[in-house]
Amino acid sequence: MIKVGIVGGTGYTGVELLRLLSRHPEVELKVITSRKEAGMAVAEMFPNLRGYVDLAFSDPQQAELSACDIVFFATPNGVAMQQARQLLDDGVRIIDLAADFRIRDIGVWEKWYGMQHACPELVAEAVYGLPEVNRTHIRPARLVANPGCYPTAVQLGFMPLLEAGLADTGMLVADCKSGVSGAGRKAEIPILFAEAGDNFKAYAASGHRHLPEISQGLSRFAGKPVDLTFVPHLTPLIRGIHATLYMRVDKSVDVQGVFEKRYADEPFVDVMPAQSHPETRSVRGANLCRISWHRPQDGDVVVVLSVIDNLVKGAAGQAVQNMNIMCGLDERLGLDSPGMLP
Amino acid sequence: MIKVGIVGGTGYTGVELLRLLSRHPEVELKVITSRKEAGMAVAEMFPNLRGYVDLAFSDPQQAELSACDIVFFATPNGVAMQQARQLLDDGVRIIDLAADFRIRDIGVWEKWYGMQHACPELVAEAVYGLPEVNRTHIRPARLVANPGCYPTAVQLGFMPLLEAGLADTGMLVADCKSGVSGAGRKAEIPILFAEAGDNFKAYAASGHRHLPEISQGLSRFAGKPVDLTFVPHLTPLIRGIHATLYMRVDKSVDVQGVFEKRYADEPFVDVMPAQSHPETRSVRGANLCRISWHRPQDGDVVVVLSVIDNLVKGAAGQAVQNMNIMCGLDERLGLDSPGMLP
Amino acid sequence: MIKVGIVGGTGYTGVELLRLLSRHPEVELKVITSRKEAGMAVAEMFPNLRGYVDLAFSDPQQAELSACDIVFFATPNGVAMQQARQLLDDGVRIIDLAADFRIRDIGVWEKWYGMQHACPELVAEAVYGLPEVNRTHIRPARLVANPGCYPTAVQLGFMPLLEAGLADTGMLVADCKSGVSGAGRKAEIPILFAEAGDNFKAYAASGHRHLPEISQGLSRFAGKPVDLTFVPHLTPLIRGIHATLYMRVDKSVDVQGVFEKRYADEPFVDVMPAQSHPETRSVRGANLCRISWHRPQDGDVVVVLSVIDNLVKGAAGQAVQNMNIMCGLDERLGLDSPGMLP
Amino acid sequence: MIKVGIVGGTGYTGVELLRLLSRHPEVELKVITSRKEAGMAVAEMFPNLRGYVDLAFSDPQQAELSACDIVFFATPNGVAMQQARQLLDDGVRIIDLAADFRIRDIGVWEKWYGMQHACPELVAEAVYGLPEVNRTHIRPARLVANPGCYPTAVQLGFMPLLEAGLADTGMLVADCKSGVSGAGRKAEIPILFAEAGDNFKAYAASGHRHLPEISQGLSRFAGKPVDLTFVPHLTPLIRGIHATLYMRVDKSVDVQGVFEKRYADEPFVDVMPAQSHPETRSVRGANLCRISWHRPQDGDVVVVLSVIDNLVKGAAGQAVQNMNIMCGLDERLGLDSPGMLP
Repeated sequence: MIKVGIVGGTGYTGVELLRLLSRHPEVELKVITSRKEAGMAVAEMFPNLRGYVDLAFSDPQQAELSACDIVFFATPNGVAMQQARQLLDDGVRIIDLAADFRIRDIGVWEKWYGMQHACPELVAEAVYGLPEVNRTHIRPARLVANPGCYPTAVQLGFMPLLEAGLADTGMLVADCKSGVSGAGRKAEIPILFAEAGDNFKAYAASGHRHLPEISQGLSRFAGKPVDLTFVPHLTPLIRGIHATLYMRVDKSVDVQGVFEKRYADEPFVDVMPAQSHPETRSVRGANLCRISWHRPQDGDVVVVLSVIDNLVKGAAGQAVQNMNIMCGLDERLGLDSPGMLP
Repeated sequence: MIKVGIVGGTGYTGVELLRLLSRHPEVELKVITSRKEAGMAVAEMFPNLRGYVDLAFSDPQQAELSACDIVFFATPNGVAMQQARQLLDDGVRIIDLAADFRIRDIGVWEKWYGMQHACPELVAEAVYGLPEVNRTHIRPARLVANPGCYPTAVQLGFMPLLEAGLADTGMLVADCKSGVSGAGRKAEIPILFAEAGDNFKAYAASGHRHLPEISQGLSRFAGKPVDLTFVPHLTPLIRGIHATLYMRVDKSVDVQGVFEKRYADEPFVDVMPAQSHPETRSVRGANLCRISWHRPQDGDVVVVLSVIDNLVKGAAGQAVQNMNIMCGLDERLGLDSPGMLP
Repeated sequence: MIKVGIVGGTGYTGVELLRLLSRHPEVELKVITSRKEAGMAVAEMFPNLRGYVDLAFSDPQQAELSACDIVFFATPNGVAMQQARQLLDDGVRIIDLAADFRIRDIGVWEKWYGMQHACPELVAEAVYGLPEVNRTHIRPARLVANPGCYPTAVQLGFMPLLEAGLADTGMLVADCKSGVSGAGRKAEIPILFAEAGDNFKAYAASGHRHLPEISQGLSRFAGKPVDLTFVPHLTPLIRGIHATLYMRVDKSVDVQGVFEKRYADEPFVDVMPAQSHPETRSVRGANLCRISWHRPQDGDVVVVLSVIDNLVKGAAGQAVQNMNIMCGLDERLGLDSPGMLP
Repeated sequence: MIKVGIVGGTGYTGVELLRLLSRHPEVELKVITSRKEAGMAVAEMFPNLRGYVDLAFSDPQQAELSACDIVFFATPNGVAMQQARQLLDDGVRIIDLAADFRIRDIGVWEKWYGMQHACPELVAEAVYGLPEVNRTHIRPARLVANPGCYPTAVQLGFMPLLEAGLADTGMLVADCKSGVSGAGRKAEIPILFAEAGDNFKAYAASGHRHLPEISQGLSRFAGKPVDLTFVPHLTPLIRGIHATLYMRVDKSVDVQGVFEKRYADEPFVDVMPAQSHPETRSVRGANLCRISWHRPQDGDVVVVLSVIDNLVKGAAGQAVQNMNIMCGLDERLGLDSPGMLP
């Protein structure tokens, strides 16, 4: 059994980690910390876990995280980088669900996240935890930077054609829509039901923190810088990201073949038949990215549609997938459930 | 492995049965029928099942239902009663998720369902599949009438105090709220998103088909007729029933004790601490009835709050629970997952 | 033109007052205050008002409220009672949308609202602003206590039969459901979209602040104390309250006749045909209470269904209705718009 | 008073027309037809109109449409073209809210709408009813083709920069999101609450009927063919369209100035401050297009955000605006209400 700890489990990625790990046959949940809620039973905050998780939140200081094999950080940005060095020294392996170790260029990171990085040397060691790209590096990693939700959906959608050098990198557009849980479990007016409900809007259209993460990935796939426009939107659903991706691709390209070949062995990427329209609800609760594509009016613009559950393949599920890889388990362990529809 | 067939799997109880059964370790899904959709792959209609269910819908006539151990009817009312006799004669055991075998009084059934019953003699044999009441009768049953969604939530909420003779049966009120999936996957105007969304209304306040089913159960618990007022409402959520139950109970009664004792050994009823407020989302996707109670102003009216997922404990999950009992399996097999929150 | 001021206009009742008053032909909006947002243009916070309201929030200290004819308090409980005396002395008439002046029994008020009342003598003077009951007292009033949202829906539903002495006051049940805007525009976790969406729950079932206000009204109608059980629920819609009311009424009573007669001259109460089911969306944005009733199984329990928009007839619209009455205007001025459906 | 008739008023554009026209000070609503619902009171189908609209649906054959000054067609595509000739001959002026007269190229229309056009000669006469472009032609028109919902939002967003020749027409992207009411009031499974709720998907990504209408408009603005990719999405809200538009624009261009100048005199287009994010709810129920723009990373891609209420500025409201223009009234008459928020 893998001894697992969670730092900061009071948000949505935290409760989703708990939902997944509580059913995982090889995991022993040892500790979950929260400074503010220390002493409260987890199931009191998240009643869906009554009968499944008996732990209470413990104070981060007292928590015996060092005795764990794997520690997940489900914390705000800037927390993991403060604690990672000590835990690694204690022999603990880390999966950070926040952004601390995702961007290799420290200057870029510090600009977008507005703080000084506490351990740049660990950024160099950290492995970007997108298994479809980095599986072999994830396996032995001590420190995995779990990708962001938008970056997961966008990168998996652009990757096959960029890697194959078949998409024009001159004008890539990623028009993305996220459910409200993507904003976290924070007491903020704009994500109230009466504000975000029955409403649709773009936000951060001039620049969102996930932009440098996505650009870093796409440039790596393409082997050169790409010109990306990324606009996120808030849509009134709880879970789900829908990325609509636009790029020029020569009409002669067998797009379906490229996608099917690239993801043939991937357990958590489902390439649908051409001209399908994947629905976010088809992956609700599932660790899956579902993709299809269109070529409107048989022109040279290809539209790729990519959906994930932002809390699963976009966060907690992908983290468990990374844990499985790191621990030499079947990658699907604890994650092999269909989405919940309706 | 239990060989399972499903008749009429194109509705919400059908897709939910498939979601649950596709993960059930002792089930082999043999056949699923649909007259209208014969030939279509199940996963084409329900894309969440891509990779989990490989079956296509088959024509009811051709389907080899007789070779199954268990056949679920996820059909409209009036279908199972036409086919049950033949299947039973072939040695198949049946779980009907519709209403054909729920009401013991044929005259009452025919009045509320507006048709003549095709096999009254099987009604007498059928076992009402509420495990918390009828477990020992379900085990050997050939024909189980799976309870309705409202009746499940209401009966489990009233049962402990009625059985104990502690509630005044003179004015019982069941004010119930259902998510829209309870109306089924039918092309009807009132359940369109733009009609049922951002809207709340009562319906069938003068009389709903689940009334006689509930009354039959409550009278059985009380050992005498009860005076019940039942008003269902449509609320803009997808899954979930919330029953708010009102009854007079003497102030001296230890209500919490009565509930905890009654459900102490029940795997799928969760009695919360007194004065809790169970949320429908806490049981979303889970086969669970969560209950709590209040005594406002320390008066003699007790308010019981009972929530279920109408598609799980209110339909498909309870049907799988019944199957487990009938087949001598651990009752929790395939059903032991927490609700999905958020 | 009536010179109008609003104290505390950053909540939902504030923006709704502004929406209604900006179209009112006899109103000149002079000042709107907010301590926190002083200096911000109202239309920056509420972009629907761009082009309709040019005011900026001003500091409460500086605001020239005394020059107004009418001042609305759209503030939290406990604010109006601090400022009312001075404004009244300055000759300003006040409509308080909070609870400060609704409960005549100071002790009861202090118990439920958890603070000491600052001006009990004004409570005695204040008129409870339910026009269907108090129109003649509202007309000359200096200080009107605008009713709460639940109390409006519940009182209008119970009133005709209680006033006529036709309902048994021994067990009245008010099972009420509110949209999330009823909780206000406050940064609180339980009313986040990802918490309140796709979810249904009761809250404050053991005791809600609107209980004493409702009981006070019902007892007045009945001419004696009543035994009321009131349970509020949170339902995932933005606007709307649905009250489902249960009471015993002798079978001989012509309920439809009682309602139609009682509300024959009321411009903002719509008695639907018997056995209708009023929908909350039918009054969305409208200053209207729509009512119907049922007598299930022709028994002696009558179920009354009463719907309002909690922000309009349940708050801002009723306040404008009161203003019209106080100022001798046509009661419907600025309020004569149908609900928005869908 | 303008005598007005509505053909086919049982859909969402019909009820919205009624909501707007019932308050219009210069309109006398004479007749509303529906073949299926002839005899039913309008307010029975749309209870929000109780007390505001006393008409019943009448049979199209019997309806005295010829006595009207203006007839609105709120019918499915292909109906108005059958009846327009006769009504025009009778001296009636027509506003068609469907697509029959929007596309000037009959061959293109017949290809996308899958039927033969019944009166191509009237297409040549018809005026495309986008007032911001065609006001002077609308004024004397006998036959106005009211624009589609997507085309309204997209054209108003692209128009200023295309007209000014400042946008590269080589790769225009219109990523559009619509609320579910845009699909109409039709009994179809994909727009059920339990299907479209808590879900997001693209649809018709390979080609949607509004594409040729949009392309026709954009080409006219640009004075040459444009290369447009248009992808519509279904988002779980009732009303609202959000168009996110991408185009290359030289960095030297004063985009804000171009927009403000172009729409300076338009009563129903609101150019927000640069880098704003217009919300669909800010125009809910209002006849308004709200627009802002961004230039991410100060690059050469400009992102324009354009929102409307699909039933108002995208359908019924724009139709009333056209009627006002045609009848020489103040263009804002009956339309001068702010959006409803929350």
